[in-house]
Amino acid sequence: MASRKPPSQREGRQRAVIDAVLPVVDAGRFAVKTIAGEPMRIQANCFTDGHDVLRVMLRWRSEHDTTPQDIEMKLAFNDEWFAEFTPEKPGRYFYSVLAWVDPFESWRHELTRRVDEEDIRLAALVGAELIDDAAKRAKATDKAELGAWAQQLRKHPGDAQTLKALALGEAQADVARRYPDRQLATHFPIELPLVADRARARYSSWYELFPRSASFEPGQHGTFQDVARRLPYVAAMGFDVLYFPPIHPIGREKRKGRNNALTIEPGDVGSPWAIGALEGGHKDLLPELGTIEDFRSLVSQARDLGLEIALDIAFQCAPDHPYVQAHPEWFKWRPDGTVQYAENPPKKYQDIYPFNFETTDWRALWQELKSVFDHWINEGVTIFRVDNPHTKAFPFWEWAITAIKREHPEVLFLAEAFTRPKVMHRLAKLGYSQSYTYFTWRNTKQELTDYFTELSQGPGNDYFRPNVWPNTPDILNEHLHAGGRPIFALRLVLAATLSSNYGVYGPAYELLDSAPRSPGSEEYLNSEKYQLRHWGEWDVARPDSLAQLIAQINTIRRENPALQSNASLRFFNTDNDQLIAYVKQTADGDNIILVVVNLDPHNPQSGWINLDAEAMNLDPASQYEVHDLLSAQRFTWQGLRNFVILDPTQAPAHVFRLRKRVQDERHFDNFA
Amino acid sequence: MASRKPPSQREGRQRAVIDAVLPVVDAGRFAVKTIAGEPMRIQANCFTDGHDVLRVMLRWRSEHDTTPQDIEMKLAFNDEWFAEFTPEKPGRYFYSVLAWVDPFESWRHELTRRVDEEDIRLAALVGAELIDDAAKRAKATDKAELGAWAQQLRKHPGDAQTLKALALGEAQADVARRYPDRQLATHFPIELPLVADRARARYSSWYELFPRSASFEPGQHGTFQDVARRLPYVAAMGFDVLYFPPIHPIGREKRKGRNNALTIEPGDVGSPWAIGALEGGHKDLLPELGTIEDFRSLVSQARDLGLEIALDIAFQCAPDHPYVQAHPEWFKWRPDGTVQYAENPPKKYQDIYPFNFETTDWRALWQELKSVFDHWINEGVTIFRVDNPHTKAFPFWEWAITAIKREHPEVLFLAEAFTRPKVMHRLAKLGYSQSYTYFTWRNTKQELTDYFTELSQGPGNDYFRPNVWPNTPDILNEHLHAGGRPIFALRLVLAATLSSNYGVYGPAYELLDSAPRSPGSEEYLNSEKYQLRHWGEWDVARPDSLAQLIAQINTIRRENPALQSNASLRFFNTDNDQLIAYVKQTADGDNIILVVVNLDPHNPQSGWINLDAEAMNLDPASQYEVHDLLSAQRFTWQGLRNFVILDPTQAPAHVFRLRKRVQDERHFDNFA
Repeated sequence: MASRKPPSQREGRQRAVIDAVLPVVDAGRFAVKTIAGEPMRIQANCFTDGHDVLRVMLRWRSEHDTTPQDIEMKLAFNDEWFAEFTPEKPGRYFYSVLAWVDPFESWRHELTRRVDEEDIRLAALVGAELIDDAAKRAKATDKAELGAWAQQLRKHPGDAQTLKALALGEAQADVARRYPDRQLATHFPIELPLVADRARARYSSWYELFPRSASFEPGQHGTFQDVARRLPYVAAMGFDVLYFPPIHPIGREKRKGRNNALTIEPGDVGSPWAIGALEGGHKDLLPELGTIEDFRSLVSQARDLGLEIALDIAFQCAPDHPYVQAHPEWFKWRPDGTVQYAENPPKKYQDIYPFNFETTDWRALWQELKSVFDHWINEGVTIFRVDNPHTKAFPFWEWAITAIKREHPEVLFLAEAFTRPKVMHRLAKLGYSQSYTYFTWRNTKQELTDYFTELSQGPGNDYFRPNVWPNTPDILNEHLHAGGRPIFALRLVLAATLSSNYGVYGPAYELLDSAPRSPGSEEYLNSEKYQLRHWGEWDVARPDSLAQLIAQINTIRRENPALQSNASLRFFNTDNDQLIAYVKQTADGDNIILVVVNLDPHNPQSGWINLDAEAMNLDPASQYEVHDLLSAQRFTWQGLRNFVILDPTQAPAHVFRLRKRVQDERHFDNFA
Repeated sequence: MASRKPPSQREGRQRAVIDAVLPVVDAGRFAVKTIAGEPMRIQANCFTDGHDVLRVMLRWRSEHDTTPQDIEMKLAFNDEWFAEFTPEKPGRYFYSVLAWVDPFESWRHELTRRVDEEDIRLAALVGAELIDDAAKRAKATDKAELGAWAQQLRKHPGDAQTLKALALGEAQADVARRYPDRQLATHFPIELPLVADRARARYSSWYELFPRSASFEPGQHGTFQDVARRLPYVAAMGFDVLYFPPIHPIGREKRKGRNNALTIEPGDVGSPWAIGALEGGHKDLLPELGTIEDFRSLVSQARDLGLEIALDIAFQCAPDHPYVQAHPEWFKWRPDGTVQYAENPPKKYQDIYPFNFETTDWRALWQELKSVFDHWINEGVTIFRVDNPHTKAFPFWEWAITAIKREHPEVLFLAEAFTRPKVMHRLAKLGYSQSYTYFTWRNTKQELTDYFTELSQGPGNDYFRPNVWPNTPDILNEHLHAGGRPIFALRLVLAATLSSNYGVYGPAYELLDSAPRSPGSEEYLNSEKYQLRHWGEWDVARPDSLAQLIAQINTIRRENPALQSNASLRFFNTDNDQLIAYVKQTADGDNIILVVVNLDPHNPQSGWINLDAEAMNLDPASQYEVHDLLSAQRFTWQGLRNFVILDPTQAPAHVFRLRKRVQDERHFDNFA
């Protein structure tokens, strides 16, 4: 075990101290995450003994640049220095800081305080030496100028005040500053890693569907071509990511029947997560869905409609997966020659073998699993939703994601880990671009306020990007069983406005499928996990569908950048626990969205909202307009305390765009 | 610059994750501080993929032990594991953590869930293999027992339930646990440093005096022998550290006159911080004070009275310090052959040369400065108050303090740095045992509450030990100018009860010296920094002295362990801003001290104190006794809201010992 030792006596004259560089995740063990093209603000806490003046440089580079760039940092206050750099392209970057006690700046600083003539003349001589030193380091053109300046300071005929002015000349100082004496510079000991993702990592709207249920013919097995014909429907709802459960051959051994039955009926299609059969494994397609050409065509048609296809990567095998024969050493065999099937208590997956990450052949296993991602990346897939990553060895994920993003920095990974907090955070640190959350189990005003305050303001902020789902094929939360359309509507608004990344599993969601396998169960009755479903017309206009509300919400998200990130989220006090109110806004304050949701699906609720003048940069005395982007109603509000009433049979929420009334004008200032 | 890379593929099968080890300072760059003989509670956040069971070990060693000790950590909740170890002796220690996925424990855990007979018989065979593996690692005596157990599991005649009971046998399991399979253990990559100090680092009462003012004859220069005769007076007040400003020869060049005058009168003695003259430097004594024998005798007489002598180490030189001649390279010379005198704006020290820590001869400078400490340690000094450490190079302090404590772990260092927060914290991280604070400038209830909450609860907690002083020879804070005896009394009670380490500069303090050099100045008029003072009788019984209150407070501190540390400090709400109330208590709750101070030196103040039932582990309904250790009055309080009134002419504060009334008994339970 290495123990951190006091610095060696190699060079004891490095007097500048770099006490901290921020942001940082686990002292640089893991990367901070940001979005390419957005400026990164770096802070360094630097100081030195006594009263000498520091110069501090932010040093950064991309993973592929060996020569870093330096940016001068500026002192704000309390020994905190700041500078910005912008990682233009997606990829991995590194930043660090160096600082040194600068004799030239220290001399200038001290000179400004000098008044006594003798002190000034002496200081001029001291400065002349420093300037000569700079001249030695300067390029020819500047050498002369600096040399001349030093001469003037030495042999100045005039009075002390003009000498002082000459010594403090800004123009000459700028030349000298180009040639600092860095020999005693302190270097922050590590380069802090940064991962810059494309914007979709921060703002995305997901729609999940089972391709096999996409058929237009009841009872028929859906195909990629069917899905292609459904694309306009999904696009019309305003989604930008279309995510499929596994599309690979499904095992026949131990295949699950309808509703997770251990025995099957003729025609049962099994679970798509029981991957692998005669027809192939993780790099192959279920023949019933179509050919690789069908898939490629689907990917490109989707892209034309602004939809990215996301695939589900589930690293596990049906007993008849080719890997089981070809690589028995990748599985854990018991004395009776069987493999213990996968479990995620209380769930049992009798149709699935887990990989044994303790196999001595782990290198080959890692390479093969990584090659699954590479295979689908080559087929045009750029987003992966990874199934239960917390049941696979963590070192594998860090290695695989880092290696894949090195070649394909545009690729995004969503971790489907519904598990303990530290485990979920670890997966995000290891490289996952987005993470599922506990949203489905957070329902009261207090639960939602606490959880989303933590998600948006907590330390995880630097690396953990939430993606919230009101439902998934595995989770039909109990509160959806009885709330009818209003509960589906309000949970959708919460998901889409509390988090810049969200998704729904449809058509189950927009068609309000709320039937559990058994009372209180989170499993769907007749779940698509085990059978085909026919959803009837996939039509945004269907009166029994939430599709139009979804389309409206996704349009609001697209038109209002405030909803495309989470950092600005703030909750406001209301005097009714069934009313939750919160604001999101852009850094420049041009776009301010105030959301008020009625958490009660059964009754109208009303109450007073107490806005925070500071959080919204509001003049408490002023009048302003709130424009409900859902109902198109406009209200003029005054001050910080305002009344709202919401009837779940009419609308689940107000999604107000706030427009401040310009003083002394009659019209409303439109920021758009 | 080294950049943290994902772990190598050297061994990808280490599935245990150690996400954090706490406490930690700057990721192990600096040592956590504790007290020798007290248990250290270490936390590690550990988990693995899936549902296997971990074993986690705390590994620790002292700086001098090469072979560490392992202690099994226990899982509390939320993946947080805990264990304790006790650094018995003062010194430097290291701790780290290792964790592994334990096949044996995982097997046991899984077996407990098995009910099906076939599952149990199969599990027994799996277990038999694991037990045989353990037997291979076991020492002879245990080999046989484990082998037999494995055999029984393989060939068990009885029914599944008795087989399961046999497989889960605790006694056999304890044997198997002694021989875990650690080959895939994950090791936390660094050893975290820990400095264990003796108890005085956490609890100390300091008294500062100028030996040269200790004479019994007005106008005479005091001596160590005079100080020796004053020791009973200091001991009677209950102090345990007696601290002297520098006792070395004082420079004659540029010597300061009375009240910091730039010219001197005959007989002016100069500032003790202008160190060095013909008679010697930092390792020598001012002849007027006496001989080294006098000093040694003083140190031992003090020790007999429970007083430790603390010396002031000020690394700076009078112009006639021998170093200036012998080592001109240790100073920064200007073109006119002079050295710029020291400044600590706005203070100017014309009589002092600073060392140049950028000298190319820095190694020799560092060694010489360290040898100054070594010299006085050899003369029996074990506590040093270091003057303006923030104006000396930081790397020097880390090196010197670490090296000195390696040989003399009992030595303590107090940093006299009144400067910016990050600088003060850095000095504490570098190794200072105690630090001066902003206490003298924190006077209102809000200021005191915020500051001492930060000091006792903030992150600095792990390394920053405050030492608070109501006055120093440099700081006669303006609020002391006009408040008379009451302000001196209340500031003393605040210092002595808010902080387990505190000190006063006397006799100026107990004799209420409040005359500033000029109105609003923090400098004393006729400061002992520049002249002798005669304080008249040094008598605890003097009516114009605070000595008896000081003695009383120090006795209360000694008798009540709650006041000997700060971690338990909590403030209570009062309805009068002139009344501040707070509690300190021991971990076992046996000793609870509730302090209420009237911050108004001029008027009686009264109000209601709202105690926190949880913080004090109080039954809100119960009756309890509060015993004022200052006035000896006893009150019976009921519930959480109680009334107090304090008249500054009578008493500055209540210092209540709280005694809970034992239910159903008439008498008061005395915890003492």
